[in-house]
Amino acid sequence: MPFEAPRAAVVLSGNELLDGRTRDTNGDFVCDDLSRRGVKVLMRLTVADDRRRLTAAFRHALEAEPDLLVVGGGLGTTHDDLTAECLAEALGVGLAEDQTALEHLEKGVRALAARRRLDFDEVFALARRQARLPVGSDALPPAGIAPGIAARTGRTRVFAYPGVPYEFRTMWTGTAAALERERFFPDVVVRTVRVFGVGEQQVAPVIEALPYDLLEMGINVGGGEVTVRLRHPRAPGPQSQADALVAALEAGAPVYSTDGRTVDDIVADRLRGGGTTLAVAESCTGGSLGGRLTARPGSSRYFEGGVISYSDQAKRDLLGVPSELLSRYGAVSGEVAGAMAEGVRKALHTEFGLSITGVAGPDGGTPAKPVGLVYLGCAGPDGTRVRRSEFYGDRETVRAFAATGALHLLREALTR
Amino acid sequence: MPFEAPRAAVVLSGNELLDGRTRDTNGDFVCDDLSRRGVKVLMRLTVADDRRRLTAAFRHALEAEPDLLVVGGGLGTTHDDLTAECLAEALGVGLAEDQTALEHLEKGVRALAARRRLDFDEVFALARRQARLPVGSDALPPAGIAPGIAARTGRTRVFAYPGVPYEFRTMWTGTAAALERERFFPDVVVRTVRVFGVGEQQVAPVIEALPYDLLEMGINVGGGEVTVRLRHPRAPGPQSQADALVAALEAGAPVYSTDGRTVDDIVADRLRGGGTTLAVAESCTGGSLGGRLTARPGSSRYFEGGVISYSDQAKRDLLGVPSELLSRYGAVSGEVAGAMAEGVRKALHTEFGLSITGVAGPDGGTPAKPVGLVYLGCAGPDGTRVRRSEFYGDRETVRAFAATGALHLLREALTR
Repeated sequence: MPFEAPRAAVVLSGNELLDGRTRDTNGDFVCDDLSRRGVKVLMRLTVADDRRRLTAAFRHALEAEPDLLVVGGGLGTTHDDLTAECLAEALGVGLAEDQTALEHLEKGVRALAARRRLDFDEVFALARRQARLPVGSDALPPAGIAPGIAARTGRTRVFAYPGVPYEFRTMWTGTAAALERERFFPDVVVRTVRVFGVGEQQVAPVIEALPYDLLEMGINVGGGEVTVRLRHPRAPGPQSQADALVAALEAGAPVYSTDGRTVDDIVADRLRGGGTTLAVAESCTGGSLGGRLTARPGSSRYFEGGVISYSDQAKRDLLGVPSELLSRYGAVSGEVAGAMAEGVRKALHTEFGLSITGVAGPDGGTPAKPVGLVYLGCAGPDGTRVRRSEFYGDRETVRAFAATGALHLLREALTR
Repeated sequence: MPFEAPRAAVVLSGNELLDGRTRDTNGDFVCDDLSRRGVKVLMRLTVADDRRRLTAAFRHALEAEPDLLVVGGGLGTTHDDLTAECLAEALGVGLAEDQTALEHLEKGVRALAARRRLDFDEVFALARRQARLPVGSDALPPAGIAPGIAARTGRTRVFAYPGVPYEFRTMWTGTAAALERERFFPDVVVRTVRVFGVGEQQVAPVIEALPYDLLEMGINVGGGEVTVRLRHPRAPGPQSQADALVAALEAGAPVYSTDGRTVDDIVADRLRGGGTTLAVAESCTGGSLGGRLTARPGSSRYFEGGVISYSDQAKRDLLGVPSELLSRYGAVSGEVAGAMAEGVRKALHTEFGLSITGVAGPDGGTPAKPVGLVYLGCAGPDGTRVRRSEFYGDRETVRAFAATGALHLLREALTR
């Protein structure tokens, strides 16, 4: 780390997070949020509901001496709720009933009992164990019933919340606001440069030729793209290293974004900004390009719709692809990709038509048209462009990369 | 845990997994797969690319003496690729160039260099460090360029793979097949019962009324469904507890699957088995239902395609939805859902047409048609059925639940 960012560790507990039942959205959320606030997350530990393992995880996290330890889950009324107890053990203290926690609990249980017509005393007797906190720690106001825990040990501030996503998010956001007021978070600049069309091998040498000792630099490969992310404190030295790196990347690699926007963002911005409309014609992606375009709120301003032409008949009937093209060149061909893009543009009266046809696999490949071969088409006011791509990977990868490739083809058309 | 299952730890490295850039799909995948194979995952550690922290994470994982340690990421050509080195340190051995790894690398680099027209020697010089493995470990055949690592220490078998999802998945699947042949995985029965249409409150009491002390039981709520998962050793006692629980659930709740098949699986099986064909008409889901149906290899046998009728014009022009219906009832209405399903069935000459129209949000809601309101339509040989649903959650949730709801409507039609 070339600059002093506060460092965090995240510990999440719950068997359901480890056996494929539940995706750990709390971990994703808090790591993302910490990172955006300029905090370096050293580790994220997801641990089964097991006294020994959870205590060991807290110890392991504390050994790294992070500035922040964020804990999710294990605060509740059942026997798997071990966080208070294990945290106390890792901190080397006992547990004691906390007056503030008790008041929070009483209030919460009273509301719950009234709402669900339950017996207050009965529910409160069950809930009361949640008021037992590690000695020396403070109760954090709950978003549901269970209060959180705030503690300190050495340089580390510890904050623990229940695992219910709504409660976790609400309570962390409250803590973050308080830390913000204390100026706990640094003034950090994050720059993300995205490259499409070449691999890491072509990007890494550009970076390695320049100094970046004042920056935190990360190269990431995924989704058919290379992403370079630079983080640095807002100061002239790091700033000029970052500027030089970004300029070198722009000169030496097919950079398409220097402000963090993805190809999805750029295409959406250009379509919206230009008052332009789009329709899609999808074969091997089966609708997922449309799904991706419409994942964005407000996409109805530029996205008209499309045709999922999975079968040849659909290509003919709904897109007007001539039978002759299909029989002469095959459904996976540049000719058909072009005709699909033109057909959907016409059918939906849009300015642009974007098409995908390919062999997603695992079956259906031939020596001439192997699995991973995809033709992309983009029809617009300046004519039709077709691109042949070969993607390597399983069905899911080929389909995802094909959609990304199509968005790049459209981005290029929208740039001209 | 009511029975002895092999125990696993998972360590994943990469700054991009901790700073909000990349979702850790490898961790999700392998935890899910291990769990289905009857392995108990004790911990999942996601660690920054930092020599000290990664070594400490390996040590922490090994201290739990798991039967299996699965490692993802950090096998590559850049300076953040620290897995081999840190693993060697945690195992207390040195690094040495491995002949098998070198051969794998040479082959991979040769193919890459030919494909991308790169200089073999230059790329190979960079790649060669990936042949340095912990002494005493074996190279695993790569799915991309980088070979994996197989090692043993005490009772623990260690397997490390590159973090590229396709490579990770393919290589783990190869290892799992080999472990399967050795009978490493226990003879555990996993029974998954899926319930659609009621909440956990209606399902939990059915379970609590019966004994399940010989089973591992988990209830999970997600995607608009309740899933009950039972795991137990293949033995008469647990077997009969499980049978009784499944029977009680079938009697007391709208169970639609007792063999683990999802609604996606069941619909696919019935369509294929019946030689039936399907087309979709999607509004608020924008193509993602089609994307989901075609995620499955072989879906072209029953899925003809569809229309993404995001705009009213698309609903009229491509699906023949009468303008009068749109103006009288609005695009989000049972009448339009029914006409969309019928329209796409006709346009694509299929036996069934399935439609979705709704308000995905966050904008566009009104008191009469709030965000989350979705109409689903299913047109088939026995007529058209329409269902009104209200889903609670963000745009992504509403869209995903709408697609699931549509599949259930189709499942019901295919059952009759």
